[in-house]
Amino acid sequence: MNVASFFSKSTKEALQNDPPGEWMPALPNECIRLSSGYPAPHLVPDEEIKQAVASLLKEEQDLPLHYLGSPKMEKLKEQIQERLATRGMHVGEDELLITAGACQAIDLIARILIDDETLVIVEAPTYMEALEIFQNYTSHFMSIPIDKDGLQTDLLEDLLAERKQKGLSLPRFLYTIPTFQNPTGTNMTEERRKHVLKLAAQYDFLILEDDAYGELHFEKHSTPLKAIDTDGRVLHVGSLSKVVAPGMRIGWVAAAPEFITAMAWFKKDLDHPFAQATMATYLESTDMKERLETLRSTYQAKCSVLLSALEQYMPTSASWYVPEGGYFVWLKVAVDTSELLAQAMEAGISFVPGRYFFLSQEDGTQYLRLSFSYANEKNIKEGIKRLGNLLEEVESSER
Amino acid sequence: MNVASFFSKSTKEALQNDPPGEWMPALPNECIRLSSGYPAPHLVPDEEIKQAVASLLKEEQDLPLHYLGSPKMEKLKEQIQERLATRGMHVGEDELLITAGACQAIDLIARILIDDETLVIVEAPTYMEALEIFQNYTSHFMSIPIDKDGLQTDLLEDLLAERKQKGLSLPRFLYTIPTFQNPTGTNMTEERRKHVLKLAAQYDFLILEDDAYGELHFEKHSTPLKAIDTDGRVLHVGSLSKVVAPGMRIGWVAAAPEFITAMAWFKKDLDHPFAQATMATYLESTDMKERLETLRSTYQAKCSVLLSALEQYMPTSASWYVPEGGYFVWLKVAVDTSELLAQAMEAGISFVPGRYFFLSQEDGTQYLRLSFSYANEKNIKEGIKRLGNLLEEVESSER
Repeated sequence: MNVASFFSKSTKEALQNDPPGEWMPALPNECIRLSSGYPAPHLVPDEEIKQAVASLLKEEQDLPLHYLGSPKMEKLKEQIQERLATRGMHVGEDELLITAGACQAIDLIARILIDDETLVIVEAPTYMEALEIFQNYTSHFMSIPIDKDGLQTDLLEDLLAERKQKGLSLPRFLYTIPTFQNPTGTNMTEERRKHVLKLAAQYDFLILEDDAYGELHFEKHSTPLKAIDTDGRVLHVGSLSKVVAPGMRIGWVAAAPEFITAMAWFKKDLDHPFAQATMATYLESTDMKERLETLRSTYQAKCSVLLSALEQYMPTSASWYVPEGGYFVWLKVAVDTSELLAQAMEAGISFVPGRYFFLSQEDGTQYLRLSFSYANEKNIKEGIKRLGNLLEEVESSER
Repeated sequence: MNVASFFSKSTKEALQNDPPGEWMPALPNECIRLSSGYPAPHLVPDEEIKQAVASLLKEEQDLPLHYLGSPKMEKLKEQIQERLATRGMHVGEDELLITAGACQAIDLIARILIDDETLVIVEAPTYMEALEIFQNYTSHFMSIPIDKDGLQTDLLEDLLAERKQKGLSLPRFLYTIPTFQNPTGTNMTEERRKHVLKLAAQYDFLILEDDAYGELHFEKHSTPLKAIDTDGRVLHVGSLSKVVAPGMRIGWVAAAPEFITAMAWFKKDLDHPFAQATMATYLESTDMKERLETLRSTYQAKCSVLLSALEQYMPTSASWYVPEGGYFVWLKVAVDTSELLAQAMEAGISFVPGRYFFLSQEDGTQYLRLSFSYANEKNIKEGIKRLGNLLEEVESSER
């Protein structure tokens, strides 16, 4: 029996991309993980989740363990609506879909919008999982570079104008992480936010705003694109992974009702009553405003430690953006970061090589992503020290 | 902005089917629910799940709340492999994918196998959610009727031979629920099981075996198709929804490694660490053999109550199959069951009208699905009494 002969056309095409699972090597336990975009272990509310489960099952018994019927689970939507409203996003019940994390939300958006001919705009670099998702549906991309102020909207405008003038197809949507971008940590300026919305209206495309890090600002907060979108063009994707716990798999899309209806049609894992009702119970008994203050000050302090260590230990050839929030610092170095990773792991540290974040992987050769969210302050400092030493060594051996 | 103009071709096509959400009306609390394919409330282990969460988070703290890294979560796969092995299905680690329930498993199989030209064989009647999933990918179906012995494989053979002779396209896979079928409760005979595997080899198609009810036999158990498949043609879908709790959303596919790799590629909700680790902890501390004995005897007793009530209260025009396991009894009556439902709900009972289970909905007009799993014995009896009275009334008014 020839297994491959049974695959659909789109499956055959998708499997021609990089083999699945070709990703970071497994990390030994003692490794200082500057690669992981995980929340800090001590900020994960395991005790509170335990209490939430106990209180939920005491109150509702078997209800959250069926397909439907948990009153608490029904509240999660309202709670998320309220959280969005505090940031200027007023969405109705029919404009919100709860998903199993942001990735499922991005996949559902791709499912309803992308044909094999669809042109998609992505940032360069961008979130690798989103790239993989889009590549399952199309091979047509416009890749627009990021600088310290986020997506370079002037370049985007030039390219759109050029395509229009030449009579080429125009993009159906832009995928952007405007606030504390993954992997660069950059924040799109207010001017550029307005500019990109103007371009979307002018060239008639949609915007998939990935806002996983939006609430984790250090000083001033940024306005989500969704909050200043008067045209219904923004499909806003959010998640509780970075502010509560990724293992709960709670995310959402906020968008025009027609989009929500179509996404619900294709969402075939059904709801997740136990996880959703547990999260609703947790949110009900948690002062999220206070929790967010704790998260912000903790991550700001950890980021400062990382930035100081970079100043102290990096060779002069290295450069980086200073983030205003989120989990990440994006580093440019003078060596090939994929080759560097093996040596780094021998030295007991990890990072993510830049190539994973680009459509054209070779564009990422000299970059790497550092995360300050997971490792503790002592290990962050020690990790950067080892990375700095390693870079000095490699550079001097190459001279 | 014209929202519909942004939809992909396949989305536009899928949305032309019945509008999403057009399904059973909401049921008032006091309604006797003979419609719900839910486990019996007192058999849902809410206390044990609470204890599993407490013990898991005590042992692993934050680990099951991250993306990866929970040792307990890793054990779930082994536990499912062991459970499959007790039923003659010996699958390797690379032949098993954990999914968010059986529906996600079916959707992933559809995702990798179905083009818009793909021909799919379904049973008539069959599980409506699976029909909806397949219809998102193709509009080409062969529909083969069920009788008291399950899928009529002779009819299938005739139709396949005819298509081959005429040079028509042949099907890529058969979707079947051989054991305690939803909605008919029928069990495919051992002869027909062998026959369908022979046909699959002869006409080179795959078999999607949906085995959600396979462990819930009353007397003798049946051999899963996967256990007698020597050719790698069976993609076996299972779930803990019917034997533990649907709200946990734990299911799987067991299939050849190439299929598993492709499905994992398209599975973009990531894993569900909290739910999966909780389930692994629950299974570790539960004697599932004993639990299954309790489930079997309880559901057998409830089924007996329903069958006795049918004998006692149904008009002579009604007929049904006697199930050997599972959750359902399939009833044929002399009236239109979609029209009957409104009156039934006024009488405080619910069932699922037959039309939902057929590709050609009109084929289901005179059928309805009764579930004996959820309502208690007293309510089952009372519910059937009311249904019988109602049928008598409607029949006599139509005379």
